[in-house]
Amino acid sequence: MEEAVWKATDVKEKVCEWRSPEQLKDLLDLELREGGEAHPQILQRCRDAIRYSVKTGHPRFFNQLYAGMDPYSLVGRFITEAINPSLYTYEVAPVFLLTEEAVLQKMIEIIGWQEGGDGIFSPGGSVSNMYAVNVARYHHCPDVKVLGLSALPRLVMFTSQECHYSVAKAAAFLGIGTNNVYVIPSDKRGKMIPAEFEKQVQRAKDEGALPFMVNATAGTTVLGAFDPLEEIADICERHNLWMHVDVTNSVAWNPHKMLMAGLQCCAFMVRDKTNLLQRCHSAQASYLFQQDKFYDVSYDTGDKSIQCSRKPDAFKFWLMWKAIGTKGLEERVERALAMARYLAEEIKKRDGFRLVMEPEYTNVCFWYIPPSLRDMADGPEFWRNVHVAPVVKERMMKKGSMMVGYQPHGDKANFFRQIIISPQVSREDMDFLLDQIHSLGMDL
Amino acid sequence: MEEAVWKATDVKEKVCEWRSPEQLKDLLDLELREGGEAHPQILQRCRDAIRYSVKTGHPRFFNQLYAGMDPYSLVGRFITEAINPSLYTYEVAPVFLLTEEAVLQKMIEIIGWQEGGDGIFSPGGSVSNMYAVNVARYHHCPDVKVLGLSALPRLVMFTSQECHYSVAKAAAFLGIGTNNVYVIPSDKRGKMIPAEFEKQVQRAKDEGALPFMVNATAGTTVLGAFDPLEEIADICERHNLWMHVDVTNSVAWNPHKMLMAGLQCCAFMVRDKTNLLQRCHSAQASYLFQQDKFYDVSYDTGDKSIQCSRKPDAFKFWLMWKAIGTKGLEERVERALAMARYLAEEIKKRDGFRLVMEPEYTNVCFWYIPPSLRDMADGPEFWRNVHVAPVVKERMMKKGSMMVGYQPHGDKANFFRQIIISPQVSREDMDFLLDQIHSLGMDL
Ligand SMILES: Cc1ncc(COP(=O)(O)O)c(C=O)c1O
Ligand SMILES: Cc1ncc(COP(=O)(O)O)c(C=O)c1O
Repeated sequence: MEEAVWKATDVKEKVCEWRSPEQLKDLLDLELREGGEAHPQILQRCRDAIRYSVKTGHPRFFNQLYAGMDPYSLVGRFITEAINPSLYTYEVAPVFLLTEEAVLQKMIEIIGWQEGGDGIFSPGGSVSNMYAVNVARYHHCPDVKVLGLSALPRLVMFTSQECHYSVAKAAAFLGIGTNNVYVIPSDKRGKMIPAEFEKQVQRAKDEGALPFMVNATAGTTVLGAFDPLEEIADICERHNLWMHVDVTNSVAWNPHKMLMAGLQCCAFMVRDKTNLLQRCHSAQASYLFQQDKFYDVSYDTGDKSIQCSRKPDAFKFWLMWKAIGTKGLEERVERALAMARYLAEEIKKRDGFRLVMEPEYTNVCFWYIPPSLRDMADGPEFWRNVHVAPVVKERMMKKGSMMVGYQPHGDKANFFRQIIISPQVSREDMDFLLDQIHSLGMDL
Repeated sequence: MEEAVWKATDVKEKVCEWRSPEQLKDLLDLELREGGEAHPQILQRCRDAIRYSVKTGHPRFFNQLYAGMDPYSLVGRFITEAINPSLYTYEVAPVFLLTEEAVLQKMIEIIGWQEGGDGIFSPGGSVSNMYAVNVARYHHCPDVKVLGLSALPRLVMFTSQECHYSVAKAAAFLGIGTNNVYVIPSDKRGKMIPAEFEKQVQRAKDEGALPFMVNATAGTTVLGAFDPLEEIADICERHNLWMHVDVTNSVAWNPHKMLMAGLQCCAFMVRDKTNLLQRCHSAQASYLFQQDKFYDVSYDTGDKSIQCSRKPDAFKFWLMWKAIGTKGLEERVERALAMARYLAEEIKKRDGFRLVMEPEYTNVCFWYIPPSLRDMADGPEFWRNVHVAPVVKERMMKKGSMMVGYQPHGDKANFFRQIIISPQVSREDMDFLLDQIHSLGMDL
């Protein structure tokens, strides 16, 4: 606890204690042997594992779309790990099925589906997006479950060029094929262009294919952009398409990211009252979902899932929600957004930093321009030289002072993508981030 | 800890404190409100959650294919929950990616693939089976990733009638269609009949379909039967089919079951040295899997997965394995098998108990015949009356004395399925099980 909780979240400690794969392999002594090891040795292994792990709860871990440590969620996780339940049926996981249901109901209420809906927790946003594709095609052609895709016309789905890669993974995994994901151009801010979307729907129809769904993104992975949901919804209505993510047909909502519920915690929700999830995914295993039980078996929600064993991912979220209330969750989001705005303003003020665009969400994307480049004219030559992020990142990791991601994007040179999530993050941490990048990269 | 670890595994305590869904909803006060709650109240919620949960680590929890509590694995889970890593890339999860690799290598060695192999941990056996279907079809037709199933002939896969329902879920989810899962009859012991398998392969070919894989089961869900792997492998070789589960092409191995690593902990492994997992599942997201990093990016194994965020499920298994050694794991399995044999012998000795068949694994399937039926002749009338399991189960749950599953199977009336996994289980617990069923059902 001392090492993994207190020190791991202490701003005075390192974010990571970098070792190369080769060094770390030696340090950890990974080999699994015939005989076991004594307790003091096992304890040392635990200490080493903690020491060389990246501290994702550290105030200066900005590398991913999640960060921070919520004490309530952590306690919830300790409880569920000790209890080790699996959400098959009410009889084996009564508390965790009911808390899942309560959380889903509340999330559906917040989404604003007045007539209600249904949902299930899944191992992540990627899997939730797979659910969306499966439910959407089942909604269009229920025969797909039994007959498979080979009995159907070619199905086509749509997403923007800024979407998460899980959409491509879903298309590949579910047999749709990545070629049948028609990619819609986004505008400069990263938002899907509705007119382009409608054009592509028409193209699919002209080709004799069956367009069946669109994936809209509310907060894209890199730029944090919001697709224009209302306009996309109108087009969906005109062409009878399933809309995922928005307020129309289904939503993937990942409390393990912005809301700090801890990995994994993701809900997939459908606006539906016809038991669609169950019809689409059920296999009716008689050894698990007996119908002659002595309680109301509609509480045995396991068959809505594509999984069999399933972790109680909603419980920790429920406990955290109980502890800080809806208001507490709201305040966290507001605070993160305010911090992102503060950082953007600081970037504009400082020499050598340049925003990729005004942030719309908690992603702040920016370039660092070392002094040696500052006088160069803005042109191809300049941009070829702005590739300093990989070197700054390497120095940062080896120092262990903080972690922030970077990537190229379209025709744009490598830029930093700063994500602000944890409420433990302060303005000083934002200042530190910029100072640190400058001190690590000023000689480049 | 007191409640969730010590009391939850104490044989003198109840396995469950049964409440109906309606009662439990009241007790837990599930509603999520605007405001948060004070610490003492949250602590009470934690206590309630533990109190009304089923204690899956209790020596008398036999209801599922997992049970028991391993202290090393539990400590491993506490560490990973505190650290909250996600296995995208080496840079964010160095310790957990390396321990995953070490565990996979050792598992592959144990499977016996001398030339090596590849693997990935997934959120469960069901998802591992989906991986198998996807990899098998990609192996046959790499175009499927891009073009989808609509560009291919109808694909057909095979499995036995005793297989787990995740195979049907996989076929539905991946667009194969459940009708294209040809179900092979099993013999009386629950093993796939090889001659029937070959007949079905021929049938698929005659229909002009493309047979591509078979799912063989080593330890079926209900009866614990082992399909004849060698004979199935010979047929696969003759017809160029991918074989999953066995030692031929791929294996789904769930340490969260028999090996008590805690939920979720499942590996999917392929006998392959061509980077098949990566080619089949990759999406090459540039914001995550940058190629210009300062370390060997082949350690960034995240793109082999269909997930993006991914829990460090291998670590707890690694720590437990370190602590008790391969020998310790073996002893546990041996002990569980010995206990199953003991129980089977006891059942044969006792009046009113009847084995469904000799156990081959840790599943012991048996009927309880209450005294009122013992003089009835064995016939349709008798079997119609043997449906006592649901009532015995109801009484058992309400008493909280133990938990064991039941189900009908083919034309067989409801029988109990006792699974023995936890090394904390003793012969006394086996005797208790039979005494308890008798005392709960003798008046029926
Ligand atoms: C927009 C978006 N959708 C989906 C995902 C995938 O979520 P997960 O990592 O939980 O699979 C991500 C991950 O970053 C994302 O940014
Ligand atoms: C033979 C078999 N395969 C696969 C599974 C599914 O594994 P999981 O529950 O981890 O999804 C089970 C579950 O009981 C099983 O018995």
